[in-house]
Amino acid sequence: MGRCTTHPVEEVQQEQTCTVSIHPGEKQVVVPRGTTLLQAAEKAGIYINASCNGKGSCGKCRLIVESGNVESDNTSLLTEKEKQKGYVLGCQTRATGDVHVVIPEETLEKKLKAEGMGKEATTKLHGLVDPITPMMEKITLTLDPPTLDDSVSDLDRLIRPLKQNGHDTSRMRTSLKVMRQLADAVRQDNWQVTASLLQKKCSAELVKVSPAKDEPTSLGLAVDLGTTSIVVYLVEMADGKILSAASGHNRQASCGDDVINRIVCAEKDGVKKLQRMALTTINDLTGQALAGLDAKASHIDNVVISGNTTMTHLLLGLEPKYIRREPYIPTVSEFPIMQAGEIGLKAAPHAGVFIMPGPACYVGGDIVAGVLYTGFYMSEELTLFIDVGTNGEIVLGNNEFLMTAACSAGPAFEGGGIRWGMRAEDGAIEKITLDPNTLAPEYSTVAGKPPRGICGSGMIDLMSEMLLKGVVGQDGKFRHGPEHPRMTVFNDEAALIIEYGEKLGMDEDMIFTESDIKSLILSKAAVFAGFTVLLEEIGMDFSMVGRMIITGGFGQHLDIEKAIIMGLLPDLDRDKFSYMGNSSIAGAYMALLSRDYRREALSISNTMTYLDFSSNTKFMDEFTKAQFLPHTEGRLFPSVQVNNVCKGNAA
Amino acid sequence: MGRCTTHPVEEVQQEQTCTVSIHPGEKQVVVPRGTTLLQAAEKAGIYINASCNGKGSCGKCRLIVESGNVESDNTSLLTEKEKQKGYVLGCQTRATGDVHVVIPEETLEKKLKAEGMGKEATTKLHGLVDPITPMMEKITLTLDPPTLDDSVSDLDRLIRPLKQNGHDTSRMRTSLKVMRQLADAVRQDNWQVTASLLQKKCSAELVKVSPAKDEPTSLGLAVDLGTTSIVVYLVEMADGKILSAASGHNRQASCGDDVINRIVCAEKDGVKKLQRMALTTINDLTGQALAGLDAKASHIDNVVISGNTTMTHLLLGLEPKYIRREPYIPTVSEFPIMQAGEIGLKAAPHAGVFIMPGPACYVGGDIVAGVLYTGFYMSEELTLFIDVGTNGEIVLGNNEFLMTAACSAGPAFEGGGIRWGMRAEDGAIEKITLDPNTLAPEYSTVAGKPPRGICGSGMIDLMSEMLLKGVVGQDGKFRHGPEHPRMTVFNDEAALIIEYGEKLGMDEDMIFTESDIKSLILSKAAVFAGFTVLLEEIGMDFSMVGRMIITGGFGQHLDIEKAIIMGLLPDLDRDKFSYMGNSSIAGAYMALLSRDYRREALSISNTMTYLDFSSNTKFMDEFTKAQFLPHTEGRLFPSVQVNNVCKGNAA
Repeated sequence: MGRCTTHPVEEVQQEQTCTVSIHPGEKQVVVPRGTTLLQAAEKAGIYINASCNGKGSCGKCRLIVESGNVESDNTSLLTEKEKQKGYVLGCQTRATGDVHVVIPEETLEKKLKAEGMGKEATTKLHGLVDPITPMMEKITLTLDPPTLDDSVSDLDRLIRPLKQNGHDTSRMRTSLKVMRQLADAVRQDNWQVTASLLQKKCSAELVKVSPAKDEPTSLGLAVDLGTTSIVVYLVEMADGKILSAASGHNRQASCGDDVINRIVCAEKDGVKKLQRMALTTINDLTGQALAGLDAKASHIDNVVISGNTTMTHLLLGLEPKYIRREPYIPTVSEFPIMQAGEIGLKAAPHAGVFIMPGPACYVGGDIVAGVLYTGFYMSEELTLFIDVGTNGEIVLGNNEFLMTAACSAGPAFEGGGIRWGMRAEDGAIEKITLDPNTLAPEYSTVAGKPPRGICGSGMIDLMSEMLLKGVVGQDGKFRHGPEHPRMTVFNDEAALIIEYGEKLGMDEDMIFTESDIKSLILSKAAVFAGFTVLLEEIGMDFSMVGRMIITGGFGQHLDIEKAIIMGLLPDLDRDKFSYMGNSSIAGAYMALLSRDYRREALSISNTMTYLDFSSNTKFMDEFTKAQFLPHTEGRLFPSVQVNNVCKGNAA
Repeated sequence: MGRCTTHPVEEVQQEQTCTVSIHPGEKQVVVPRGTTLLQAAEKAGIYINASCNGKGSCGKCRLIVESGNVESDNTSLLTEKEKQKGYVLGCQTRATGDVHVVIPEETLEKKLKAEGMGKEATTKLHGLVDPITPMMEKITLTLDPPTLDDSVSDLDRLIRPLKQNGHDTSRMRTSLKVMRQLADAVRQDNWQVTASLLQKKCSAELVKVSPAKDEPTSLGLAVDLGTTSIVVYLVEMADGKILSAASGHNRQASCGDDVINRIVCAEKDGVKKLQRMALTTINDLTGQALAGLDAKASHIDNVVISGNTTMTHLLLGLEPKYIRREPYIPTVSEFPIMQAGEIGLKAAPHAGVFIMPGPACYVGGDIVAGVLYTGFYMSEELTLFIDVGTNGEIVLGNNEFLMTAACSAGPAFEGGGIRWGMRAEDGAIEKITLDPNTLAPEYSTVAGKPPRGICGSGMIDLMSEMLLKGVVGQDGKFRHGPEHPRMTVFNDEAALIIEYGEKLGMDEDMIFTESDIKSLILSKAAVFAGFTVLLEEIGMDFSMVGRMIITGGFGQHLDIEKAIIMGLLPDLDRDKFSYMGNSSIAGAYMALLSRDYRREALSISNTMTYLDFSSNTKFMDEFTKAQFLPHTEGRLFPSVQVNNVCKGNAA
């Protein structure tokens, strides 16, 4: 296929169209000539994980062109054999005529193993919040029927008992919509009404009045709006019971793995596109969560959304471009309580929506939710908190201060930039050990499915195994040559064979390259440097840390011992570590049910001091020092005994 | 033509259509068979004054069927001669085939002589309000450009100087729309922005942020939303100057003259229809007021609307049906400050809209505006206030109390129910005297145009003239027989000929019948009984009244002496009377410019005690006693010397 020539201007102006037929799913889309196959798939509603947002650098969007005319840019991410079989990168290949495309199994997005979804996760939250104080207060009132001597307006007649019940009605607002429904609503159930008061920051808004007999019980929706995956909980507001949960990929994934790629995409295609993708995902999940319950979306009148700053900006349609430009300024940190209708969420249009506040561009509401849930902000004990999701955010603090930072860990732990890296989807290797003699791996995969790649926890296992078994040196270089039966060369690089192609039913072996190792070392170095700098900033060191909390989906199957061996986590007493699951959804759940927790979230966000690492020289020093396994300063990892002789460059 | 037969069901189901062609204007509309010609004209956008809302009782919607097939109900409101000429009542005539219709000159709505429109009226208001405190506060701010060390969000960066300037930002709300514009708005003029803060009852809302260089000066719109006519003022908010004014018929007039007919129409055709008609009128007038000025509708960011309770309910799309049903309950008395966009007004969508509060179903915001403007609520002097518009509302009070009532005066003074009655449009007889010997009238008309009918002030002149010249007795019966050259008989009733048909260029004489006199007596009796009962209610009488204020368009050309002679106004010292013009628009203007006056309006509305006359026996007694010219109790009118011998039935 080779490098394509650009279209002569005349041709482009004709705006020819091509039909792209896609298997599986047998979808057909008509697109302008020159559209990439990735865009065509997106248009057909097929979600492909395109980590790098179509830059041609991640190699995830592999497709097979079965027939038809395309132009492809050259890529080193496909083998010659693959190219002969018709494999192309979807983002680098443009339709120049009608095309038949096959999307291979491994390219399609699979069900993600989202943390916070199990019965255990939801059960442990139930009962956590007491008393329950929703945003939407529903008050059933019996009004005095009007007479000639008592002819105050319907609205004043409603306000009268509210006032008598101790509500501050002087600051209460009434929407025009309510005024329009009011006359009939008060009369339909013989002057028995249910008033829905949305409690906002300093006042309340009367958002609905309905005949008392018609008012359903309230449902709440807690949303963990992750860059990669989105989790929703449907909650009975009366008792806080989690009725159902649903999770799925954030559809924005086709615009790139990380927040920077999403912002770039929003700048190119408009923020509305990304907004729609997030809304569609949330609304589809809400639909799934409602399915089978005797409830409608219109019963949801409380919503809390917890996401990082970029995610919340995109969801609300706020301009995200200044987030990625120095000095990194979000439009809004503390959001007013809004209504579902103005945002477009599948819920009652008048539903109150609380968005978790985010203190900075790269530390958002999901981290505030995590701090809220884990509760260390109330404890004297100095705590280190880390959420390794698509970003790596850390918090250091206790009941006296909270200091936070984001380390540009990159998406390596979620599979980004790692040749066989993948998210914790079905078939991802999540645990692995190497035979000390043959280096033959023994592994287990998510859902026990045939191996398709290796996810974060698997990579950490592998890194520590390779280090302990002397496969790599502390510098991350392989110590065996290509003559070793488990070693190979890929693109002039040494690589360890994790599984042979024939066993995978593929033409290619599943390998782990020196570049992959380098990527992981950079990621873990960024995280560890982050810990170090935060501690230094307040004149402390690791010995003073009383507790280390790990949250986020990635931590679920993390072997802490192995994460310490590779130098990702500090070498603390093992009993100081605790894994607290999806703290973003847990914090959202708490804020959904309690005004105090909503206030607490605002207070946490305001208390947090954000440290920007992008131009921090101390961070750069520590980052460099940490690019070694486990670290250039061995004293920091006294329990890690690296027994191989060759310590690499730093030896 | 005679009474029509009903359509056989089969025919109706075929849904045949007819084309109605209308002259003047040469419009054609296609309507279902059976549509009335009045409805067809409305569909064609031709506004016909149909006082009775299509009941066939007012006889105002006279049209000429030139050719084509129609079915007409019988009516006594047309003479045989007229019928022969093709005259029909538009509301009682249905198209059964294609029809050509001519709308006679007298049926078309003409430019209304609306009070409050002259240079004098607007000039006297300028300077009345000081200081000017608009709902929309515009604050120009210079923000600190962000740095890595000062990386608060755009919104917090904006709030910081607002807080420093003494604004209570803790209660400030920000709309999602503003958040969406914010990032670019703050950066476009080098961190110079203009923040528009809409001051609501107990808090402010940030409704717009724009680059300082782009923000135009604010305009305000004051609206007198009358049942019959609507007046708008376009105001420069900076100094209160009235830049332009416009007035026109409320398009709802095709649904009837009075508020009851409008409500009936809303119940039949939906409130949206009436809402649209009011909005269209206001928006058209706003367009007229803007024309020729270097300003756009988007510059209008303050709006005040003053109207009676039915008018404001219809404008906002609130259910009006309980207004006309005992115990007469409005949906809302005190409206929150809304935004133009939610109502549909031609203004900036974020413009603040203050609706004058109305204490009761039949005493509305226009009366509160009148009390505000005339200012007697601050004076010790006991004052009687009357606004005779389409309704007749009265207020009695001073700085200690305000008591109010509506007298079902009916639309007689606006021409309703009076055979040759009309509003103060071009050609309406507004002043008239009778020659004591021949009874030949001498009259002047609005705009000096050929006479088309007689308006309120003309009728009052005529009534007092007839009484003083002995043409009618105090019982309202004619004292001359049909043998008098100026007398005639119409529908078995005696009638005075005001102008002969040949002089009018019509087949019919312009007459004034005994029924017309009866209608006027009932109207004036209702008003006078209202005064009496309000005074009695607090144990006072007319002698204690220090001031009598007359407002409303009708009062403009009212001869107070003659109004006293017929018993409409009480027989007080003439220097106690003052006419204060269109106090509804004047009050709206004051509230537009001043927060204090907006608060005052709310306070006035809350202070007012409303007396319902509909089931008040005292009122019924007084009403009966007042059905005499000037009154059965002559002592109440010492200055009125009725010199004719025959005092009629009551003699």
